[in-house]
This record gives sequence, C-alpha cells and structure tokens, in this order.
Amino acid sequence: MKPRIGIFEGDPTGIGPEVAAKLLAEAETHARAEIVPIGDAAPACPIGQASPIAGEYTLRSLRAGIAALQSHRIDALVYAPLNKKAMKLAGLPHSDELHYFAELLGQTGPVTEINVCGRLWTARVTSHVPFREVADLLTVEKIRDVSGLLNRTIAKAGIPAPRIAVAGLNPHAGEGGLLGTEEIDIIAPAVEQLRAEGLDAAGPLPADTLFVAARRGDFHGVVTMYHDQGQIAMKLLGFERGVTVAGGIPAIITTPAHGTAFDIAGKGVADPGAMREAFRIACEMAVSR
Amino acid sequence: MKPRIGIFEGDPTGIGPEVAAKLLAEAETHARAEIVPIGDAAPACPIGQASPIAGEYTLRSLRAGIAALQSHRIDALVYAPLNKKAMKLAGLPHSDELHYFAELLGQTGPVTEINVCGRLWTARVTSHVPFREVADLLTVEKIRDVSGLLNRTIAKAGIPAPRIAVAGLNPHAGEGGLLGTEEIDIIAPAVEQLRAEGLDAAGPLPADTLFVAARRGDFHGVVTMYHDQGQIAMKLLGFERGVTVAGGIPAIITTPAHGTAFDIAGKGVADPGAMREAFRIACEMAVSR
Repeated sequence: MKPRIGIFEGDPTGIGPEVAAKLLAEAETHARAEIVPIGDAAPACPIGQASPIAGEYTLRSLRAGIAALQSHRIDALVYAPLNKKAMKLAGLPHSDELHYFAELLGQTGPVTEINVCGRLWTARVTSHVPFREVADLLTVEKIRDVSGLLNRTIAKAGIPAPRIAVAGLNPHAGEGGLLGTEEIDIIAPAVEQLRAEGLDAAGPLPADTLFVAARRGDFHGVVTMYHDQGQIAMKLLGFERGVTVAGGIPAIITTPAHGTAFDIAGKGVADPGAMREAFRIACEMAVSR
Repeated sequence: MKPRIGIFEGDPTGIGPEVAAKLLAEAETHARAEIVPIGDAAPACPIGQASPIAGEYTLRSLRAGIAALQSHRIDALVYAPLNKKAMKLAGLPHSDELHYFAELLGQTGPVTEINVCGRLWTARVTSHVPFREVADLLTVEKIRDVSGLLNRTIAKAGIPAPRIAVAGLNPHAGEGGLLGTEEIDIIAPAVEQLRAEGLDAAGPLPADTLFVAARRGDFHGVVTMYHDQGQIAMKLLGFERGVTVAGGIPAIITTPAHGTAFDIAGKGVADPGAMREAFRIACEMAVSR
C-alpha cells in the first residue's frame, strides 16, 4: 500500500510554495504516495518578506499537520521551508519548529535535528552554543542519547543496523590524551556503552579524516560534538540540497535543509531537488515502519 | 632562466625516495627547473620502520638543504615525506621540521605551516592544542600575524593581492554575539587592521559556508582559528594530494602533505601527485620572486 504523505507548502512568502508545487507536478510523486495537502488557503502576503500573518498561517498549518499525524490520517509530514522570523513574529515561543513539534506531541525526551546528505546522516551533541562552552557541555549521557536517536532514525529509514561513527573533539581525536582528554574521559566511554547496547558504533575518530571515510561509504551516520564539525563537512558534501529529519519525535517529519530564499522567491527559478529528497526520505521511512 | 630547485628524497624508510624518483624521471621536471639533489648516499635501513639512523640522515640532509638555500646555490627546497618519530629518535628537539628550519635560518618571528590544495591556501591561528584551549589562545595579534604571513606567501606564488577569508570561531560566526563574542572582540578587529594595512581581507565569516565559497574560487586563502576547522574541509577537498609550504621562513620550502606511508613503502605503488604539486608550487614561487 502507498504511504499517505502530508505536504505543507511552508512559509508562503518564500520559495516553499514553488518547490512544493513542482514536487506535486511530478507524476513520480503520486506514483509513490497518496498525497494529503496540509494547510488551507494561504494568506495574501508580500513575497520575500517575513510577515506575522504568514507566520501565523505557518504555525496553524503545522498544528494541522501534527494533528493529522496523531490521528493517523497521514504516515509522514513533509514541509517546505519555514521562516523563523515570521514564526517568532506570530508568537512562537520555542527556539525552532522541532521543539514545537515535541510539545504538540507530548514528547519529553531529547530531540535533535538530523541532517541527511545523499546517504549520509549526521546528528550533533551540541548545536547553537558558543564554541568555548562546547567542551563543558559534553556528557556520556548526551552522546549516548544523540547516537541512539541517530541510530533509531536511520534504522527507521530501512537500514536495520547502521554503522555509526562518533567524532572526537580535539585535533587527531586527542592523540591519546596529548591534545585533550575529552576522548578518554567522555567520548570513548559513551561509545563503549553504545557498543554494549548492541550498536555498531566506532570512535572517537579524528573529525578531519572521518568525513573522508564517511563520504566513501564507511558509515551510515556520524555523531558530531559541535555545530561546525558537522556543518563544514556537510555543506561541502552538498547539504544545501540535503534534508533535515526531526529526530527524537514519535512521527516521521522531514523538510529541505535550505531556507525560504527570499532573494529568488516568486521568480520561478527555485530548485525542488531538496524538497524531492525530503519527500523520498519520508516515503522510505513510512514504508519501512 | 630556470629556477634551481633542491630535491631531498625524504626519510629513506618511507615512500619518499619513490615519489622523488618518479618526479625526477619525468621530462617535464627537468624542462621546468635545474634540479639539485640534496643528501648523500642514503643509509641502509629496513623499509617501513622508524629508525634513528634514517632520522639522522634526514636531519643531516635538511641541514644541507638549508645551507644550499642560504648560499643561494638553490632557489627553493622540495622534500619528500619525513618521519617525525625517526627525527625524534635522532634527537630533534623541535616540535617539527618547520621550527628546525626557523632556527637554522635564524628566524625569530612567527612561523606556521601553510596548506595548499589545488588553488586554495590555508593557515591556522592555533594548531595542535586541546579544543577547550582554543578560544583563550586567540588574539588580535596572532590572527594578524598568521593572516599577513598567509598573504605574503600566496603573493610569493604569483598572486600579488590575494583575497583572504578569515573564519569566525563560533557557529554562524557568532550570529552578532548571540553565540559567542570572539568575532566581535578579537576576529573583527584583526580583520579591520588587516584591511587598514591594505590586505584584501574579509571576515569573520561562518566557517561552514566559507569553504563552499572558497572552493568556488571566491578566495585565494583562508585563515582558520583551529586545526579541524581547516582540516575537515581540506581533507574533503583532497588535501591528501595537497602540499605544505613553510610559512614565515625567509626561503621557499615545500613538501607533500601526505606522510611516509609505511604500509605501502617499497612496493612501487606510491602516487607522486603531491610531490609533483610541491615541486610545481616551489617552481612558481621561485620564478615569481
């Protein structure tokens, strides 16, 4: 049976409606899934500007999407790019939509965004925090949580026993303690626990060579310790055409990694490639479930 | 007139002699430069093992190379991969050969290795130090020194006014202070001073998008704040086939970025690509001078 995929066009002032429409115009889309449009008539807002009216429409539509997931009217939700400023103007108190989803779904455990680029999945232990706070924020428990969450999410996409690489923090992964001790004190114990739990986890590995190995296909997933450790690699690997998956959420929710691209909104030139990828991953996860 | 390039075969127990021999076997090499071999008959040492005898031969040959540079018998020195353990066993007290060169040449200013991958040059403000010490090690002066040094080195390679990008430290380059203040307090003032001195410097720029721009050709050089910030990107861009240039040294010295590769030493399968690149860059720098 074909999965039922809810599609929300995203913030109507950006390129979301365009990439969603391009996806829906493809025969392959309808061959693959039963499409359930999410959201009512979009409000008339100026293109290319963050607007509270568009933000309110976005939040209302996301709530409708979550309700559809909860009532099993859809198996997965795919949304085109949102605009954070617009959602804030409309009163979103959360740091991002992911935490809003968690609240709506009554999810109290850890949640994190998972980035997918081609066949490579990554999640990070710390994210939007100052660089100098990263080392003190790392704990065995957080590394285990994020790694476990990444492992489960990749498994949901049809890879039952993914190979997970856990990055070190220091240059050369600390070089046996010469260049920092977080690998010895925190990361290696976390990897050991993961392996004891049955995960196919390796690490701590030097971050610079790790991504060369991951690109070659040695790993399905990479757990990074901080924002740029993963993002420098993922952006070079083409993450602007990649996908973000909601991790730690008891539902399948995906979105393109790129933003609303106000500079080209309404011009008809937006590339639907990442939206198509977000849809493909949602379908695979819905079918595998 | 053709430049005179000194070639040292590197540690004789690794792949150095092989990649040097392959380079010297190419007609193009001799068309481009007058070759001056550096080093006497190599000692007989077992292949694929760090040896104090090989280390002693390495240090003696490097001293001969530096002497040839000082007496202007050669315009540049290119050496095949060395083995740090062997040099340490032979009594090298310095952290690496670069600091040995500085001492031999009576150089007291800052020196740093510069990495070249294709047409992109990078240098880092901190290197082999624990991650948690990085933020406290950054100063306006160090960022200026390294940036100036990178600028001069690229200029020596025939690009008179290189475009230099200076990376931020924090995610999104601090996002206006929300995610860390080193950009505001240290990096931006350094970039301002560099611009006041006439450098074409931009920054602080978010590290993750910066390398995508650099790969596209927007910059000739990138100054990174810490080891992995540059190395994650450079390794993905193919730095294993790249070149290291001695920065801050009043002489032209280049070497392949890869190591002695003991696992394939003596098998005849070593790729001379990076050695050829090291030679090409040395020739360009010697001719431009």
